[in-house]
Order: sequence, then structure tokens, then C-alpha cells
Amino acid sequence: MVTQQYKDMLQGKSVIRQLSEFATARGAEIGYENVFDYSLGNPSVPVPQKFTDVMIDMLKNRNPMELHGYSQSQGIPSVRQKHAEYLNKRFGMDYTGEHLFMATGAAGAIAHAVRLVSQPGDEILTFAPYFPEYGPYINLTGAKLKVVPANTVDFQINFDAFEEMLTEKVAAVLINTPNNPSGVVYSTETIKKLAAIMEAKQKEYGHDIFLISDEPYREIVFAGVDAPYPSKYYDNSISCYSYSKSLSLPGERIGYLAVNPKATDAALMSAMSAQISRGIGHNCPPSIIQLAVTEVLGETADLSVYETNMNLLYNELTSLGLEIVKPGGTFYMIPKAPGKDAKEFSEKAKKYDLIIVPCDSFALPGYVRLAYCIDTEKVERSLEAWRKLMKNEY
Amino acid sequence: MVTQQYKDMLQGKSVIRQLSEFATARGAEIGYENVFDYSLGNPSVPVPQKFTDVMIDMLKNRNPMELHGYSQSQGIPSVRQKHAEYLNKRFGMDYTGEHLFMATGAAGAIAHAVRLVSQPGDEILTFAPYFPEYGPYINLTGAKLKVVPANTVDFQINFDAFEEMLTEKVAAVLINTPNNPSGVVYSTETIKKLAAIMEAKQKEYGHDIFLISDEPYREIVFAGVDAPYPSKYYDNSISCYSYSKSLSLPGERIGYLAVNPKATDAALMSAMSAQISRGIGHNCPPSIIQLAVTEVLGETADLSVYETNMNLLYNELTSLGLEIVKPGGTFYMIPKAPGKDAKEFSEKAKKYDLIIVPCDSFALPGYVRLAYCIDTEKVERSLEAWRKLMKNEY
Repeated sequence: MVTQQYKDMLQGKSVIRQLSEFATARGAEIGYENVFDYSLGNPSVPVPQKFTDVMIDMLKNRNPMELHGYSQSQGIPSVRQKHAEYLNKRFGMDYTGEHLFMATGAAGAIAHAVRLVSQPGDEILTFAPYFPEYGPYINLTGAKLKVVPANTVDFQINFDAFEEMLTEKVAAVLINTPNNPSGVVYSTETIKKLAAIMEAKQKEYGHDIFLISDEPYREIVFAGVDAPYPSKYYDNSISCYSYSKSLSLPGERIGYLAVNPKATDAALMSAMSAQISRGIGHNCPPSIIQLAVTEVLGETADLSVYETNMNLLYNELTSLGLEIVKPGGTFYMIPKAPGKDAKEFSEKAKKYDLIIVPCDSFALPGYVRLAYCIDTEKVERSLEAWRKLMKNEY
Repeated sequence: MVTQQYKDMLQGKSVIRQLSEFATARGAEIGYENVFDYSLGNPSVPVPQKFTDVMIDMLKNRNPMELHGYSQSQGIPSVRQKHAEYLNKRFGMDYTGEHLFMATGAAGAIAHAVRLVSQPGDEILTFAPYFPEYGPYINLTGAKLKVVPANTVDFQINFDAFEEMLTEKVAAVLINTPNNPSGVVYSTETIKKLAAIMEAKQKEYGHDIFLISDEPYREIVFAGVDAPYPSKYYDNSISCYSYSKSLSLPGERIGYLAVNPKATDAALMSAMSAQISRGIGHNCPPSIIQLAVTEVLGETADLSVYETNMNLLYNELTSLGLEIVKPGGTFYMIPKAPGKDAKEFSEKAKKYDLIIVPCDSFALPGYVRLAYCIDTEKVERSLEAWRKLMKNEY
């Protein structure tokens, strides 16, 4: 019989999707260039030309049987090896190819990591505000996502609440830094304190508690911001990466998980991930894309536009009286909604063709998210709309 | 804590993998050209040049933001629409884009299909001999794979055993035609009889029983063979396809599932598949590959080599006294092992650098599988080794 569980999931349409569809519909009326669509976290700068050149070169010159052939489930061995070397050089780690598993984006990496280190019924902690897709990623494994309330002072971690919630049932802690939606980057101090608490609790409970670190925005960090590599500070850690944002390749589904060589069963985890893949028919990320991203290791799209946009918006919006914790990276920021009702604020903003997302589904009521991955020229034109919104409505 | 289930799965190394590694090692000694490696089911002919040309053209001329952008989880709408139109024209079906879900190969399609129509604890029936990866695809969903014994006369279906095993617990029946490993294609008569039995049992039990049809070898059918489209004959059917073999693109992970428009909840299944994807971090198959295969709908690699190889081997091996049901398609055949011990036969064959796989793991002891997706020139040279094997050993 048709499975009710997935049928039920069709009911809830995400607020982000609804607002994005509104923006598209409004664009059809007045021209999309006149809609200041801050709804979707889609990269707005093209993939580096070098990636395209590498793809074309491989298509022209490599043996198609090898180029398009099966990859090992864990990923192509040379691809994993080169990733390990790159990460070691950059972050002073000791990965080998055996610690790497090529995944279909950070989403695939997280879903595998959760299955690697938890049983159905276990709890996984994350911190508000958080990316709502963590819900299905985790809950469909049978584990339970629990959300630690936000530290709204600076969107680092609310450690009091964290310590209270870090019970014996917790198998893993999932962090996302630089953070979607706050744009905040966890400081070295934050990561060290998090690690110390987790170490102590591991000892107290006598079992592993894993740190799963979701890092798709790793490369989008603004000037002067301290952006530590979390796995450097905690042994039982799995780093989940995606090329979706750094190379502007969201549709090609390519990323990896890197298991800390000091973690429990570190040498087995990538191979175990391949076993998880068997149960979901994943097999491997596309071979040609694995090979191509490896040829451009260390390159990024021109990400500077995001910092330009952030500064424009942060300066104008704070001068208009909005409260914002200044982002350290990503292409998001979360002003506090005046009047504290984010849905109402989002509705009012629509009148000025400003499309912003209430953060209720990010477990942070009273705030709105701006995804400022749009052309700077449009950000500039939107400032007048922001001024009108704030003048007329508040 | 690290999940024992996946750790345990690391123990069993597949016989196919072991023999393939033996072939590689032996090749390092005597030159791989002298090893007659019939172990792996990897395509041996290149992707059509048109696919490569389409890829290069898109990389050169399309907007990279669109080309590499997020696809809908169900697949790019135009891709799904064109697939529906193609299938309708070819098989007289009534699919719309809403019945299509783009998957990471047939593996991904099957894993989704099983989740769509079964609950943990339900039984899924398949028929010996069968592709051993069905085990993890199905068992890791929580459903239980049950294997109907083979009809060794012609490797069509053992209907007596099937009817006995088709109890109320069965949620779906998984078929694979053309078949790996037998190479046999189910006839229209077989499909009709299968459908009639399933229809009757649906009525008797008062619940749906789905037909999941795994069709990666759909395009590899030899002259004069009747190769019906199974979904044409049974309403509650899901067709699972892969471009791995037909376009020689196994590493690029692209295929689809097509839900029969007459199936229960047909209009919801693709959208439900997208919900399943959320729990495994799958999101979508790579965008550029989705677009490229759609541009070459109906094209295949030059698959004629497989029929040439089949005829060479079938004629020689049967004349040497081996019993073989003549394949109607694929690039496999399964001679009966003389002496009935397939492992012993495989070991003896190794002495002549013939690498063949015992079918024990395909639930067919006493037979060996030849994957004749190798160069015809090599097949020809292998015939002398076959003659020696059969002369000296039997």
C-alpha cells in the first residue's frame, strides 16, 4: 500500500517556497527586475570559468569509459586523496583518502553522518536558528531533532540551554557555521567551549557524542572574521561540505563528508557510508563532477558580491532602526522584526515588493531572513523600498 | 555511538568484487589483455558522441546559473515532461511530467519505489536469479526481500512458487527484465500471467500489490525477441530506468521512475518521492546530466557488440557441451556449471584466465555468470581458453 508517511509530508508547503512563488508571480506582473526577491538562498554568481574549461577539456580528451564509469561508492580514490591533501594543508588535519566520502552535497553528507552515529530514537541537537531541512534529514532516519533555543545577543551558542539539553540520549550535535539564516560565524572561543562541554559529557555518559559540522558556507566569510575549522577542536567530528555555494553548483549535487582521523572508528566511517548508500540507491555522486571539482580545489566563484551586498543592507537597515547582528559570512542576515511579528512584517514588506522570509520555520519567531544573493544593483535599488517600508509602516 | 548495522555490513565482500580484483591482479602479472575478465557488468562501448557534443554545447553556451542551478527535487520540469512524451510515444502510455521522478539511476529509483509502496515489515518478492544489490536496496528500508525460486527451464517465472509466496504480507513484486544475470527477457505471455495473478490477489486481499519493474537493460534486446513494456500490462506499476547501460553512463547516476497513471495515488507518487529524497539528502540528480540525457532521448550507445559477443559465446560454449538458456538481451549469460558446483567451476576457469562468477549470490547455485561486456576481439581470443577448460577439466 502507498506509504501514508510521505503522503502526509505533502501537506506542509514551506514558507520560503510560498514567498518565492509570490515573487515569481509578482515578477510576471511588474517585471521580475522590480521585485526585490530576498527569499531564496541560491548563488547569484557564476561558477568559475576554470570549472567550465575543465569540464569541456575532460569531455573532449578523456576516455569516455573512464570519465563516465562507475565510481567507487565512497568516491573516486584519487578524488578522495586530493581532497584529503587539500584539507590537511589548509586546516592542519591528518586526513587520508580513507576518511573522505564524496556525497551529494552537504545534504547527502549530513543524512549519511546522522545514520553513521545514531540509532532510531536517539536525539540530535542543533541550535536555533537553524535550516529547516534539518528536520526531514534527521527525523526520517528515525533519530529525533531537538533544537537548543537561540542566543539572541550575538547568535553564538546559548550554552546554558545546551548543557541542560545535552542528556544521555544525545548521539550527536549538529552545527552550521557560517550559519543559515543568521549569517553568524562561530568564533574559536565558541567552538572550544562547545568542544569542552561535549568532551565532559562523553566522559560522564561513557559513550561517544559526535559533532556533525555543516559547512556549505565555509568559503563565504567576510573581512576580519575569525572562522575556525570545527573539526580541529573536537575528535569525534564529521565535517560536511558542499560545493553548491562556493562554486555556485547547487544543481550538480557534489560535496563530501570528512571524518576526523581521531574519531572512534574513523577508518571505517567512509566505508560504512558506502553501505548506507546501498540502502538508498545512491551509489556515488556523478563521476565527471567529482573529477571536475577536484581540478579546481581551492577555487571559488567570485564571492565578494555577498560582502558588498551585506554592507549595503546592514548599513542602511540599521540606520533605519532595524536591529541586526552583523553577519560574519554567508549571504543571509536576520533583522529583528519591528513590532516582533515577523509574519506581519513580511506581509507589509510585500507591499513594497520586498520579499523577506519570517524566521518562524527557522525556530526564531520575531525575525526575518534576507537572502542577499542577488545582484548588487538590485540591492541598491531596494534601499528606497526599505526606506518607504520603515517610514510608512513604523 | 557508531552504528553497528553498517559496521557489520563491511564484513561480507562480494564474490563479484573479489573476482574482479583477482582479474586486475592477474592482469598486472600477465597483461590485462590476456585476462578474459567476465566478472563485471560495466558497459564496454562509449557514450554516443551526441551526448558529449550536447554537454560541451551547454557548457559553452548556456547561462551557468541555470545550467548548474537547483533542480526541483522531482527533476527539472521540462526534463520530466519530455521523458513522459517520449515514453508515451514509444509504449502507448499516458504519462505526464507529474508521473516522472528523475532518480540517481535505477538503484535510486528502486529504493524510492520500495519506500513509496511498503512499510517496514512488509514483504517484497523477487525472482531467482536476481541482482544481489536488491538485498540492501530493500532490506535497509525495513521491508523484507523474499526470493521466488527460479524456473530453470527457461528462466521465465516459476508461477507455482510465486502464487504460493504471494501472501497478504506482500506489498510489491520486483521484476528485472531483460534480466541480470540470466539475460532472459520476460515474454508478453509471462507478463500477462504475472499481472493476472497479481490482480486476483489484490482483489482477494483487498489491498494494492505494486509491480516495481527494474529496466536498466531495456535497450539491450537481441534480434527477434519479444520485449514487452511491463507497465503496459498492470495498473499498479512503477517502471525504474537507468541510462547507465543504454548510454554507457554508469558513473553519472541518472535514471527515473515512471508511475503508471492508472496506479493508486499516481498523481502523488512523484511528489512523495521528493519527500523521500529529503530524508536521504538526495535532492535531485545532477542538473547538467538531466538536461543532457533529455537532449538524446531515444539514442543509445552502439549496443550491437553485446549481441555479437553473445552469439560467439553461446555457439562455442553450447558446442562444448555447456547448457545455456539463450539470452534475449543484456550482456549476461548463465551457463550451468558442469559438475554442478559453480564455485569449483569458477576456480578451474581461473587457471585459463577465464574470470566467471558463481551465481550463488544471485540465488542460483550451480550456475556461473558471464558478463560479456568486453571487446569482441577478446571474446574471440577467450574461446581457445574455453576449449582448453572444457577439454582438460571435464
